[in-house]
Amino acid sequence: MRAAVRTGRYHPRMDLDLLRSAVGWRDGRLEIVDQTLLPERLATLELTTVAEVVDALRRLAVRGAPAIGVAGAFGVVLGLDEAGPPRPGPEGLAAARDELERVAATLEGARPTAVNLRWAVRRVAGAAAGAADAAELRRLALAEAEAVLSEDRAACARMAEAGRAELTGRHRLLTHCNTGRLATAGVGTALGVVYAKAAAGEPVRVLASETRPLLQGARLTAWELVNAGIPVTLVADTAAGAAMAGGRVDAVLVGCDRVAANGDTANKIGTYALAVLAAANRIPFYVVGPLSSFDPGTADGAAIEIEQRPAAEVATLAGRRVAPEAAGVWNPAFDVTPAALVTAFITDAGVLRPPFGASIAAALGRPPS
Amino acid sequence: MRAAVRTGRYHPRMDLDLLRSAVGWRDGRLEIVDQTLLPERLATLELTTVAEVVDALRRLAVRGAPAIGVAGAFGVVLGLDEAGPPRPGPEGLAAARDELERVAATLEGARPTAVNLRWAVRRVAGAAAGAADAAELRRLALAEAEAVLSEDRAACARMAEAGRAELTGRHRLLTHCNTGRLATAGVGTALGVVYAKAAAGEPVRVLASETRPLLQGARLTAWELVNAGIPVTLVADTAAGAAMAGGRVDAVLVGCDRVAANGDTANKIGTYALAVLAAANRIPFYVVGPLSSFDPGTADGAAIEIEQRPAAEVATLAGRRVAPEAAGVWNPAFDVTPAALVTAFITDAGVLRPPFGASIAAALGRPPS
Repeated sequence: MRAAVRTGRYHPRMDLDLLRSAVGWRDGRLEIVDQTLLPERLATLELTTVAEVVDALRRLAVRGAPAIGVAGAFGVVLGLDEAGPPRPGPEGLAAARDELERVAATLEGARPTAVNLRWAVRRVAGAAAGAADAAELRRLALAEAEAVLSEDRAACARMAEAGRAELTGRHRLLTHCNTGRLATAGVGTALGVVYAKAAAGEPVRVLASETRPLLQGARLTAWELVNAGIPVTLVADTAAGAAMAGGRVDAVLVGCDRVAANGDTANKIGTYALAVLAAANRIPFYVVGPLSSFDPGTADGAAIEIEQRPAAEVATLAGRRVAPEAAGVWNPAFDVTPAALVTAFITDAGVLRPPFGASIAAALGRPPS
Repeated sequence: MRAAVRTGRYHPRMDLDLLRSAVGWRDGRLEIVDQTLLPERLATLELTTVAEVVDALRRLAVRGAPAIGVAGAFGVVLGLDEAGPPRPGPEGLAAARDELERVAATLEGARPTAVNLRWAVRRVAGAAAGAADAAELRRLALAEAEAVLSEDRAACARMAEAGRAELTGRHRLLTHCNTGRLATAGVGTALGVVYAKAAAGEPVRVLASETRPLLQGARLTAWELVNAGIPVTLVADTAAGAAMAGGRVDAVLVGCDRVAANGDTANKIGTYALAVLAAANRIPFYVVGPLSSFDPGTADGAAIEIEQRPAAEVATLAGRRVAPEAAGVWNPAFDVTPAALVTAFITDAGVLRPPFGASIAAALGRPPS
């Protein structure tokens, strides 16, 4: 049962609470919706080891910058539990601190681009490191991971409302990838704004780009919105430009994996093209994300490491080759949208407007870099 | 055997000449490479009726603006043959003319956007209409269809050489969809330039966008280039912008389905986005196509009818649903790139430069509209 050890354990119980949040903690286990199975199958996956969490992160069973932060936070707790019951005394504390550091380093390296993962793992590790003994260390780590989750849920609600207010009168929204309930512990980032508009009884329609290579727009966003009863029209990524030029889009809303100090934004591959097309068509382009996605330690987009993904994601479809083996493939998971193409950032601290160096620094409570 | 009647007859004989040209005439039958089967299977399909030609055009078994022109031209001959042996005398001629008109109308309506289809069908019908009897009408139609094919092959060679000269020093070329041997009766349009560079011993590398929804870039362009021994790297359509912004592209070359009198260009969906991205990154953007793709009767892009394709092309992959049934789909086959985004047109009459209204009119031997 090597695969089961590596992957975690599926169980048939459908937990409706997981539809409110794709990642949760229950009975000492991390539960996620396995997003690689959607839309064909909605199944929860139970993770009990760091290796299982890393595997789930790498194969995108859990994805979305805020959700991977939450998964990483609880991954730290799972790592402590894997090491066995906390031992009393100074030696037990020293061993637990070593384990904490080892587990944190493993988890934060699972995916390089989204800063939320590193941020959440370091936050949990930092909160636990000050414990007086090993048992307290585990308690502090769990409490901090639970805080990461509940704060993300609250941040989603604040972003959704800020976005709803900002987008008054704009109902035809183009979005990319998935930024909803499946990408966060709450209602989502960009898609949270859509849910807030719908909840407020305002008209809203979504144009979802399918988001090759992994089709999160088709598989996840369309699925979420159909389930929520919100009108959604799917387009190939190639058709987003024609939709904008044809007057079918009032605003573009995307999430973010990392925002640099100057506002340059790493997000799902294809975001940059949408930003350029929005600017060319005078359509506002909004980035929606919590402050935990902002990285003051990254000066600009050039400093963001871009994850490269396997060639097979592009060269095969549903297990069948669509391109000859001898063809090369370039498959970056993210691209960088220059700050100049962003109309505003919709965050849990409100709407940040240009000049972004100053507004981002102010929101983060730091001097502008 | 209803399917066989509708679709034509596959035969196992591999005709290497078909690799030089995806469409040919042999023993009174139209032979095409069935492009829906590539890259998994290279098979030729024999078409003997107008219904089979229309079916092959609609399901994109034969595609590419010049190639569908050639297929339509021979389709007229097949239609005349379907009506039975030409009858002598004035009544036979009148019947053949009626048949000619009926067949031409059926064929030119098979796909609406590419002007080559209408142009080639009308050219054959026009050449045949002046015949003195029904037998001569059939001979004239066949001779004209053969001229359409051989002229297309010659036009490809001239475009390829004109493009090679124009692109001296630019070797990393981004292209979209398929514009090569599979799209024409010759070496292709945009991809013909690539073949000419390779044949001249100049360095050339192709970045091929996969071209959702039907993946002609992955299935056809990568296959053609691998077979020709030319380096090709495949990218998801979402990654083309990042490739340009990252300095990986020296020029963008695309084909065209219809160029309006002012230079506005209808081409495969996604072309417009590439043109906007090229302009934003100061990369030259070339449209390569024969004068038969230019339509002086279309004033500008707004007058071009855009074919809408079935939702299933986007909502399913390899027969599996990737989006919920309740999601809408918008699936235009083409978009329009404004003339202002085109650096130059590379045609069989040389390189046309701005202002395009004048240069296009001069190439077509007409006063500017």
